[in-house]
Amino acid sequence: MITTIAFDADDTLWHNERIFIAAKERFKTLLAKYHTPDWIEQRLDDTEIRNIAHWGYGIKGFSLSMVETAIELTEGRVSGDEIAWIVENAREMLRSPIDLLPGVVETVTALSGRYDLMVITKGDLFDQETKIARSGIGEYFTDVEIVSEKNRDVYAGILSRRGIDPAGFVMVGNSMKSDVLPAAEIGAHAVHIPYETEWFLDRVDESALNGKVFSRLDSIRDLPAWIERQTRI
Amino acid sequence: MITTIAFDADDTLWHNERIFIAAKERFKTLLAKYHTPDWIEQRLDDTEIRNIAHWGYGIKGFSLSMVETAIELTEGRVSGDEIAWIVENAREMLRSPIDLLPGVVETVTALSGRYDLMVITKGDLFDQETKIARSGIGEYFTDVEIVSEKNRDVYAGILSRRGIDPAGFVMVGNSMKSDVLPAAEIGAHAVHIPYETEWFLDRVDESALNGKVFSRLDSIRDLPAWIERQTRI
Repeated sequence: MITTIAFDADDTLWHNERIFIAAKERFKTLLAKYHTPDWIEQRLDDTEIRNIAHWGYGIKGFSLSMVETAIELTEGRVSGDEIAWIVENAREMLRSPIDLLPGVVETVTALSGRYDLMVITKGDLFDQETKIARSGIGEYFTDVEIVSEKNRDVYAGILSRRGIDPAGFVMVGNSMKSDVLPAAEIGAHAVHIPYETEWFLDRVDESALNGKVFSRLDSIRDLPAWIERQTRI
Repeated sequence: MITTIAFDADDTLWHNERIFIAAKERFKTLLAKYHTPDWIEQRLDDTEIRNIAHWGYGIKGFSLSMVETAIELTEGRVSGDEIAWIVENAREMLRSPIDLLPGVVETVTALSGRYDLMVITKGDLFDQETKIARSGIGEYFTDVEIVSEKNRDVYAGILSRRGIDPAGFVMVGNSMKSDVLPAAEIGAHAVHIPYETEWFLDRVDESALNGKVFSRLDSIRDLPAWIERQTRI
C-alpha cells in the first residue's frame, strides 16, 4: 500500500544542471584569454571536488570555487572586474526563474490528495526554500526536507521520524546515487527518471547497481500509471 | 507541564559571533592600505545587509560579501592574492573549532532524559550540521531543525508537525528577534540568555518588547533552576 511519494527537486521537478552548465560556459569565456576552455573546465571541476567537503552543495559554494579557480588559473593576475563578474553571476544564478520539467504540473496535480507528496532535496537550505516557494507547486507537497547529503541513513531517519513504512514509500529522482540507490537500500520503492545530463559528481559505478531493485521511467508523466501498477500487485 | 526544551545554537550553545568579528578585523587589516578600518567595516556591513536576501545567513554568503566589498572599496584594484586570502579565510572560518559556552555541557546533561531537547538554528544547512556533529553534544538532542529564518510561523510549524503544545515548549536563545519574540508570540516559554555581543542584524526596537512575556537569564547554568520553578507553578 503506497502512502507517500517523495520527489527530488533539482532536475526532477525543475531544470537545475542547465543553470550550472550555462554558468560554466560563461566562466570559460570570461577566462578565454588566459587558457583553453577544456583546461578551465577541468580545473573548475577539480576545485569543486576538493571544496565540496568544505562548502557543501549549491550556488554559493560553486561560486567560491569559481573565484578560487580564476585566481589559480591566472596565477593571481585575475582582475577585480573579472571577480566582480563571478559574484554578479552567482546572484544571477540564484535569481534564475524556476523552469518546471514537462509533465510535472499534471503529475503532481494528479497524485496530490490521493497520496502524501514530499520533496526531499539536497543543497543549500536558503536557495532550495526560495526555489520551492517560487516554483508555484509548493502547495502540493505536505512536507519538504532539505538535507545536506542523501544517503541510506538520511532516508531512514526521514521515514522513521514520520512513522512511514518504507514499503509504502516511493522515492522519485534523477540521481542514481542520491535518490535511487539509498531509497532501494532501505526497502523503499525507487524510481529513476534520468535527466538530460548527469552531474559528474553524481555518477555511480555500474557495480553499485548489482542486486538493487528500482524502476526506470522515461518521464515523470509515466509515474501515475507506474503507481497504479504497484498498487494492483 | 514542560516537555520540550529547544536551544538556539550559535552564541547560545557555542561561540559564533566571535569568529565573524575576528574575520572582520582581519579583513580591515587586509585592506588597510586602501581605506580606514571604520569605513571598511561600514561598507562590509552595508554589503551584508544588501546581500542577506540573496545569500541567506552563513559563512559562504558572508565571504561573497567580503569579495564584493573588497572589489568596491578598491575600485577593482584588489589583487588576486587579496581575494585568495578571503577564500582561504572562509575555509578557516568553516574549520573553526566549536567552542562551547560555559555551563553548556552541565546544563544539557542535567536536562536530557528528563526533557526532549532540540536544537533550532538558523543558517547554512551544511555548516550548521557539521558544527553540531563536531560539538560533541549532538547526542543529547533528539531533534535538530535548521531553518533559513526564525519567525512566528516557522516556530508554529515546527511545533505542530511534532504535535508539541506551545505551553509545554521552551525556546532558549541569545537573540530577541529570532529566539525570544517569535516563541513568545506563539504562546511558548521564551528564555533570553544574552551573549557578550549582539549581531547588528539581530537588534530589535524596544517597542517590539511591549506586552511580550519572556524571561532573561545571565547564564545557561541558571536554566535547570528556572525550569524547576515553572514546573512548580
